[in-house]
Amino acid sequence: MDISKRARKAANILKTTSNNDRNAALKAIHDRLRDNKDRILDANKLDVESAKSNDLSGALIKRLELTSTKFDVMLQGLLDVAALEDPINKVTLERELDDGLKLYKLSCPVGVLLVIFEARPEVIAQIGSLAIKSGNAAILKGGKESLNTFTVIQDLVSDALSRTRIPSDALQLITTRELVADLLKCDEYVDMVIPRGSKELVQNIKRSTTIPVLGHADGICTAYIDEFANPEMAAKIVVDSKTNYPAGCNAIETLLINKNAPLAGKRTVAALIDNGVTIYADEPTMEFITDAIGADQHLKLADADAFDTEFLCLAIAVKQVDNVEEAIEHINEHGSHHTDVIVTDNEANANKFLIGIDSAGVYWNASSRFADGYRYGFGAEVGVSTNKLHARGPVGLDGIMSYQYVIKGNGQVAGDYVGAGGAKRFQFKDINLTK
Amino acid sequence: MDISKRARKAANILKTTSNNDRNAALKAIHDRLRDNKDRILDANKLDVESAKSNDLSGALIKRLELTSTKFDVMLQGLLDVAALEDPINKVTLERELDDGLKLYKLSCPVGVLLVIFEARPEVIAQIGSLAIKSGNAAILKGGKESLNTFTVIQDLVSDALSRTRIPSDALQLITTRELVADLLKCDEYVDMVIPRGSKELVQNIKRSTTIPVLGHADGICTAYIDEFANPEMAAKIVVDSKTNYPAGCNAIETLLINKNAPLAGKRTVAALIDNGVTIYADEPTMEFITDAIGADQHLKLADADAFDTEFLCLAIAVKQVDNVEEAIEHINEHGSHHTDVIVTDNEANANKFLIGIDSAGVYWNASSRFADGYRYGFGAEVGVSTNKLHARGPVGLDGIMSYQYVIKGNGQVAGDYVGAGGAKRFQFKDINLTK
Repeated sequence: MDISKRARKAANILKTTSNNDRNAALKAIHDRLRDNKDRILDANKLDVESAKSNDLSGALIKRLELTSTKFDVMLQGLLDVAALEDPINKVTLERELDDGLKLYKLSCPVGVLLVIFEARPEVIAQIGSLAIKSGNAAILKGGKESLNTFTVIQDLVSDALSRTRIPSDALQLITTRELVADLLKCDEYVDMVIPRGSKELVQNIKRSTTIPVLGHADGICTAYIDEFANPEMAAKIVVDSKTNYPAGCNAIETLLINKNAPLAGKRTVAALIDNGVTIYADEPTMEFITDAIGADQHLKLADADAFDTEFLCLAIAVKQVDNVEEAIEHINEHGSHHTDVIVTDNEANANKFLIGIDSAGVYWNASSRFADGYRYGFGAEVGVSTNKLHARGPVGLDGIMSYQYVIKGNGQVAGDYVGAGGAKRFQFKDINLTK
Repeated sequence: MDISKRARKAANILKTTSNNDRNAALKAIHDRLRDNKDRILDANKLDVESAKSNDLSGALIKRLELTSTKFDVMLQGLLDVAALEDPINKVTLERELDDGLKLYKLSCPVGVLLVIFEARPEVIAQIGSLAIKSGNAAILKGGKESLNTFTVIQDLVSDALSRTRIPSDALQLITTRELVADLLKCDEYVDMVIPRGSKELVQNIKRSTTIPVLGHADGICTAYIDEFANPEMAAKIVVDSKTNYPAGCNAIETLLINKNAPLAGKRTVAALIDNGVTIYADEPTMEFITDAIGADQHLKLADADAFDTEFLCLAIAVKQVDNVEEAIEHINEHGSHHTDVIVTDNEANANKFLIGIDSAGVYWNASSRFADGYRYGFGAEVGVSTNKLHARGPVGLDGIMSYQYVIKGNGQVAGDYVGAGGAKRFQFKDINLTK
């Protein structure tokens, strides 16, 4: 497959370029896009008009539309990424195996990324800049609804790169679905797939490739109100976790309330209802809440699927539990291993929860909405992963880095050492690295 | 699937156990096996006899046979693993996001491992102990040729665990191929597959699962003799890399010789022939070597496939290259991204090579045979990986660890911060961790 082979060749060169060269390429792309703002926005208008005449959803059109402000934010993003520390060749281990025989562990790019996204054309600059900064080649596939915007940006990026030391094939933009299907089979040349879009997109891709996929199909996050929760804090954290951005993967979908926390439970559910959230309650909760605040149109009985549902809107499933152990068990079984929260003033229960939950993020007295690369201080976010291998949770530049072991010797051979035929012993002296 | 669900439940408990509890379990297994040495060795004799009467290969019978010495080494291994540092809950990042809002990154087990191996029954204790030490549950599948040994060990391990705080389901041993096929589909419960055996085994498994597989299908390692190589050092390193253990994945299969290094080239090829290695040479090498040392029964012309072949025996493909750039290009295209070596006294060429090669290990003036977890000082080896994501190269306990982010707050919500509706700004103060 020509595209992936060219990407691999570009990756092999990109890996050897200096931080200055990579930053210069980002600046070149930035300048070229800035100088052609009108042309790009005009192309985007065509896409938006065509989307409207095809009756695409309002939400999609909003994501598709490249406003002047979004454009400027995208440009600034290119400069921000250039300003990040060089992620390549960071030494994370230095060990003297024996006199004159040294082992190093160095960060290096993963290689070739295939990034698949929907609608939002500014992702090209976002992901493209992260790829170049980290020395990875990227093949970018946008949705067909953004074809005009995409084509113009593609020409400009490719033209900008051709004047730098970064190979033009480092960023290739493709538009057809058939090409993606082919590329998903190229596990010899493509090292990682990053889908940015709906749950369906991610699931479809995971099913159709053996290449590692960075992403999360589900975001079923849970908050647990412990017996020892401060009622006001519980209400505040749960309302933020649910309503700050209900479409986010880090919004909670389930609330567990300890049976001995009636005050915190009542206050929290009332606050959710005040914020327009529909409550799908199990029977004990239903009983207790109706007793406490009376019937309400927002209060409904949970069905069997409620606790495995990602609502992504102002709705939440609520269940009563006996203790922190039951909460942990419920979350490990029904959650999607994304981010889960305990509200409690009891340190022992908090520690049980923090260590017992098998999720990318486990929070004590803080909103689930902090699960985000920028809020973690990563400077950039590649995505959020519920994989347990490689990158987990919010993923910054680190997530598209691999590592290599380098040995520098002066002629040493294994046969001289114990275990391989010789008598010499390794010394294993670690060199302290200052961070 | 019952086995994988039980393993998952065990993993959820195992994750919360103390290092002392896990070590006590290893000691219990150690004692139980030690006290039943005769029973185990008798069972193994049955397997060996049956393998002989079924005309299985000598190599396989050798791997299958559990000698008294191998048994004692296996027992010692259990104690050695117990003595390793606790790999769980190591803090690798501590960051104050804001006053009273702290982010931690902590190591944690991956979860459930499926380990598939052939013949060698001592792998049960080896991998089983690494799994328990690291808080992972493991499902172990041995070859049917070791059924008797396997069944006895299984009973003893399970009985030993039942007297400890580690759930018995933490280590489950299975024997049928059908169960493996089912388990490879359980991506909801199994987090990682570790095949230990032939290239065919690894390839078959990689093809039949979407669960991440830790391993390497090929070990096509290459040594490059540069124009500025010390001839004696070149010969010594290349001979060790090829002949120290030709069946190892870290043995070299290809030798590239710079056209301006006739002396080093000649001396190395002559030394290889002296050590019984068959040389498959490209035409320029053939010409030059025949001129230098005359015809030899070990000297043959390379065919088209020679440079993509893993010989795993005393044979090597040899090619002449013009310069270090051509060597790099050849290795990136034909190698298996395992371990590659440059022999040179020229630092600039060495650095070109070290940075240009896309392999797990890149060595300057040292034998490829150092690519091994014990020789890297990892204390234990789970396997060798040519994956670029997660673990790469020789893999120690780290390779079966994941991580979690923990946030501890006192009621903070995202909505108070810039970007999510509020005005507060994050502070991002990193706490220095001493290693």
